[in-house]
Parts: sequence; C-alpha cells; structure tokens
Amino acid sequence: MATDETLTDLRHPVLALETAAMHRWLSGDPDGFLELSADDVVYTDPVTEGWIVGREGLTALYRQLRGLVHAERFAFLDPRVVEGGGLAVLTFDLESWDDGSEPVRWHCTEAYRKDDGGWRIVATHWSRPQRPQQ
Amino acid sequence: MATDETLTDLRHPVLALETAAMHRWLSGDPDGFLELSADDVVYTDPVTEGWIVGREGLTALYRQLRGLVHAERFAFLDPRVVEGGGLAVLTFDLESWDDGSEPVRWHCTEAYRKDDGGWRIVATHWSRPQRPQQ
Repeated sequence: MATDETLTDLRHPVLALETAAMHRWLSGDPDGFLELSADDVVYTDPVTEGWIVGREGLTALYRQLRGLVHAERFAFLDPRVVEGGGLAVLTFDLESWDDGSEPVRWHCTEAYRKDDGGWRIVATHWSRPQRPQQ
Repeated sequence: MATDETLTDLRHPVLALETAAMHRWLSGDPDGFLELSADDVVYTDPVTEGWIVGREGLTALYRQLRGLVHAERFAFLDPRVVEGGGLAVLTFDLESWDDGSEPVRWHCTEAYRKDDGGWRIVATHWSRPQRPQQ
C-alpha cells in the first residue's frame, strides 16, 4: 500500500520552497512565488474568475498585492506531499496571524513540476473555509 | 518550453474518469468518486475543517450526501491536465445547473496517481468563487 510512502513527507524539497516563498509573501513580497512559478502555471483563489493561465497573468495579479500582505507568524497545518515522476502535489492549510489578531486560515493545493531549473509550481489553488477554524 | 505539452490535454484518461464520476455525483450517487479515490486520498471543501485523510473518512462525508445532489447539466470549464510520471493534476471549473436555475460554479483541483488498479484520486480540492460567475 502506498500510504506509508506518501503521507506527510516533511523532508520533501517543495515544502522548503513553499515555506521560503511564504515568508516573503507574508512580508509583502510576492516575488518568491513568482520565481517559483512555471511559465504555464495556472492559479485560482476565491476572487479569481476561473483560472489565471500563465506566469504573466499571475504577475499582474500579484503586482496589486505587493507591500499589502503582512503577518507576524504562520503555520502549515497537515502538510502532505505526494510525488510521482516529475510531479509533486503539496496540500496543506495555512494559518497566519499578527500578534493579537485572530488567525486567518486557508486551504491550499500546490502542484510542482521538476523542470530544468528545479521544482516549479504548475497549479495553485487557494480557498477559504466557510467557517474559519481557530 | 513545456507549455505546449501540458496545456489542456482533453484526451487524458483522468478527464474521462472525472466526467463519468461527475455524471454519477450529479445524480445523487457518490460511489463513482469513492471508487476512484485512493486509500490515502486527502480531501477539502469549504465546509471541511482542514483536510479529510483517507477514503474511509471521505466515505463517511459522502454518505450524508447520497441522493441529495442533483443537476440536469454540467460543464467543465478550462480543464487542464499536467502529467509527469505516475501523477496527473487536473484543474477546472465546474458549472452545473437544473433547467431554469442559475448555474452553480466551483473551482476544482484533482490530483490522480497511477496505481495498480489504474488512475486513482490522491488529492481533491473544491472551492466556491466568492462571486459566482455566469
């Protein structure tokens, strides 16, 4: 059974890449995620109509957010990586907060592909739980 | 560049599997998706706290919905499959509706893994756009 091989491999390199990009993101710097994204990345979140296709479109979206996103701390809850061949699928919940504030929670799926330059994001899906959990 | 190889391969088998399971789902029958799901599947949607881990938990969730979900028609909008080795990541929007009703729209990411029995879902992520598009 494949369960033991695929559940929650915290040593997988895409988790380290995601963590580093998230540090930058929550300091108002979207370039970490843009540098990680493949040319043909697709992206969706709750305010996106359909899927944004391509890093160019994603760059335009993130440009509007530069300097605006901020959190003091964050955690990846229940991170899990399934890898097969040149793809790795990372799933987790993000919880982030400023001191004294309620945590903000998101569900996230990030699919990475191993390209010549290393692991690159090919699909990003962010969503909010209807009732954020504490 | 990998773009041409990976964008919207409508002939990929996981898209046919997803379509067949969706036909059953929208007739109130969740077994199509359960049969497609791997033992170690993870699942999230807007009302899920975190991620459900394992087909057993998913079966419990779907049991509550048996016979309740219904639509006359549906469409996959902008479906796209990226495959590498034994994984395939399918992204799309689902639009479903009964005659005379407003369409209901979802964002979906489905990660499939090629197991001994064929392609099986290892990660499912459903979310609602904040403002459903027509």
